[in-house]
Amino acid sequence: MISLDDLQALARPAQTKIVLLVLDGVGGLPRAFDGKTELEAAQTPNLDALAARGMLGLADPIAPGITPGSGPGHLGLFGYDPLRFRIGRGVLEAVGIDLHLTDKDLAARGNFCSVDVQGLITDRRAGRIPTETCARLCGLLEQIRIPGVELVVRPVREHRFVVLFRGENLEEGLSETDPQDIGKPPLPVRAEVPHAAHAAEVANLFAEEARKTLGAEHPANMVLLRGFSKYPKIPKLTEIYGVRAGVIAVYPMYRGLARLVGMEAVKAGDTVADEFAALETHVGRFDFLFVHIKKTDSYGEDGNFDAKVRVIEEVDRELPRLLALQPDVIVVTGDHSTPAAHRAHSWHPVPVLLWSKWCRPDGAQGFSERECRFGGLGRVRSAELMPLMMGYAERLTKFGA
Amino acid sequence: MISLDDLQALARPAQTKIVLLVLDGVGGLPRAFDGKTELEAAQTPNLDALAARGMLGLADPIAPGITPGSGPGHLGLFGYDPLRFRIGRGVLEAVGIDLHLTDKDLAARGNFCSVDVQGLITDRRAGRIPTETCARLCGLLEQIRIPGVELVVRPVREHRFVVLFRGENLEEGLSETDPQDIGKPPLPVRAEVPHAAHAAEVANLFAEEARKTLGAEHPANMVLLRGFSKYPKIPKLTEIYGVRAGVIAVYPMYRGLARLVGMEAVKAGDTVADEFAALETHVGRFDFLFVHIKKTDSYGEDGNFDAKVRVIEEVDRELPRLLALQPDVIVVTGDHSTPAAHRAHSWHPVPVLLWSKWCRPDGAQGFSERECRFGGLGRVRSAELMPLMMGYAERLTKFGA
Repeated sequence: MISLDDLQALARPAQTKIVLLVLDGVGGLPRAFDGKTELEAAQTPNLDALAARGMLGLADPIAPGITPGSGPGHLGLFGYDPLRFRIGRGVLEAVGIDLHLTDKDLAARGNFCSVDVQGLITDRRAGRIPTETCARLCGLLEQIRIPGVELVVRPVREHRFVVLFRGENLEEGLSETDPQDIGKPPLPVRAEVPHAAHAAEVANLFAEEARKTLGAEHPANMVLLRGFSKYPKIPKLTEIYGVRAGVIAVYPMYRGLARLVGMEAVKAGDTVADEFAALETHVGRFDFLFVHIKKTDSYGEDGNFDAKVRVIEEVDRELPRLLALQPDVIVVTGDHSTPAAHRAHSWHPVPVLLWSKWCRPDGAQGFSERECRFGGLGRVRSAELMPLMMGYAERLTKFGA
Repeated sequence: MISLDDLQALARPAQTKIVLLVLDGVGGLPRAFDGKTELEAAQTPNLDALAARGMLGLADPIAPGITPGSGPGHLGLFGYDPLRFRIGRGVLEAVGIDLHLTDKDLAARGNFCSVDVQGLITDRRAGRIPTETCARLCGLLEQIRIPGVELVVRPVREHRFVVLFRGENLEEGLSETDPQDIGKPPLPVRAEVPHAAHAAEVANLFAEEARKTLGAEHPANMVLLRGFSKYPKIPKLTEIYGVRAGVIAVYPMYRGLARLVGMEAVKAGDTVADEFAALETHVGRFDFLFVHIKKTDSYGEDGNFDAKVRVIEEVDRELPRLLALQPDVIVVTGDHSTPAAHRAHSWHPVPVLLWSKWCRPDGAQGFSERECRFGGLGRVRSAELMPLMMGYAERLTKFGA
């Protein structure tokens, strides 16, 4: 695959606009009675017409057979090899609640848990305490004082929280404290690399202080920490390609992932229609817009084929608003497949639709997994879509003379 | 390509079973009178029905245009990049006669040859002596005494034999002794890397003693040595994926290649039917079974189109026995193509059929090179089939969160 350095060298200024419309988990599997996937069952006259004027293909987000998480799935769409650029769980969790991380932050994912008088774990999730309780306890933990370290402790949901250790010399490479079993004490944090020694001390101090702070609480009287990670060093998409990039997403995690690569988040509301309205409002300020639709994935994970179909149809109805803005390149795809039949992210390749006035039409009649197999884009890695979008937007100059 | 370390981190325990059915050299080329390949000419109702329920594709064993040997061809199928993991000729020859190599063994491929009174080679193959003579002479060579080194000398066929030098500090990186021409003396072994100096001494001592031992023999009165190699350090497939893996193969080389990556060889008999019987007997003990059919390749090398077709048809008749075992994933493919028209291994991509209940059907009506071009698997490297099989067997967890 071409390197980001090479792409940066090829990028050139242009007035063209690109819209990347991501239907999270859009790829599906056939239902029994007529063999149609979600995308094939959906009535999508606008997507089909766009497919007929554009090109189709299939993308592997990571590698054949590999199921992507949301982080790697989106990094791929943004043009980064997910096997090379990795996002730790702590960072992803922090990003998912809209926390802004600095270079000095070491993020960890926390669980409140229950321990007995001997300190042995009796419930790794503290009975899934209500989110409000979690928020109150996070407030208590944020009061802990560790010299030279600022603490940010924020609730996620139920027993889950995020802690940011902000300070000098707090490196990643720490073991987790969750023994993954009850009847055992929380493990001490170990530095798995020498330069993480100071971070290990700080994390252990935090855990010890948390035990004291939470001593009188019930059932959440201790914490488990894992996924210690720093904000990844990723060259910004805006710098590589010289684009002004914006993200429109209802869920904070996707805004966070997009910010990680230099995109600016804009207010989007809660519905698909809200997102298209935000696109209309903000299109003038950007030349790369990433629009994220979440519910295709949510319904896929629920195993709700029909509801996933309805979300696809809802997007299709809004599509003319996007077309009316006359972007130069439109890509419609997913970050991975979430077939309702599988009720989870899956390893199946993802349908891709690319339209620009420079397409060599490939005879597709509609947007479906079936048609994508024969599409003119062929089979690509998701990370190749970014150079393709840039190329079709005439934003890359010739390689070599 | 995803690394073996990453795959190991993703592998998770499961009850699913995978059968990899390899028809050696199955890929073919069209015959003149009707343009059908061997696979297309064969009557294969069972493979065709499986193809209709599964997915097809084409695999490049090494890289486009490159013709694989049997070793790299199989390493690819087992999920190893053959360009990275290499098996020396000495080791392959040893594995091919069912020798079990240890870490202390340096293997070499030997030829008996004829030399004149001046020690110049008159026949590099000693008139292709009968295998029984080869065996008797190997017995003599095994009597040679080299301090600190144990010798294992075993016949292969005609003038070909294997020698294992077993001892400390016997490293690979040696030149061969065959000058590739008559009228020249055998070359001394040179150490091509400094740490192979001791091994070079030992090999030269062996060659000198062989000259004395064989002095009275005719026509095989000297040896030529090449392909000095150690057992390759390959992470075991069983450890990477956490599978119990078994191999069913009539020919020892394929059992040896499979053992190299951690598979257990089971008794298989001599015929295709014997192999399917062994599959029925042993399926319970394993969750990954590699079944190797040799004769598709042998007849391909003979240029015998019709006999190759008959072997494919024989496998097709036995296929219901495999289906009756209800494995979760079935892959039918080859380690390379051996078109009868070409009478040798070739660089052509290899047809692949993958079936599991998680397939997105691709509309294929039968198993053929032609249909494989449009298959849902697309065009892959053979080494990507292993992660695909693991993915479709739900034996890989999500990459990233």
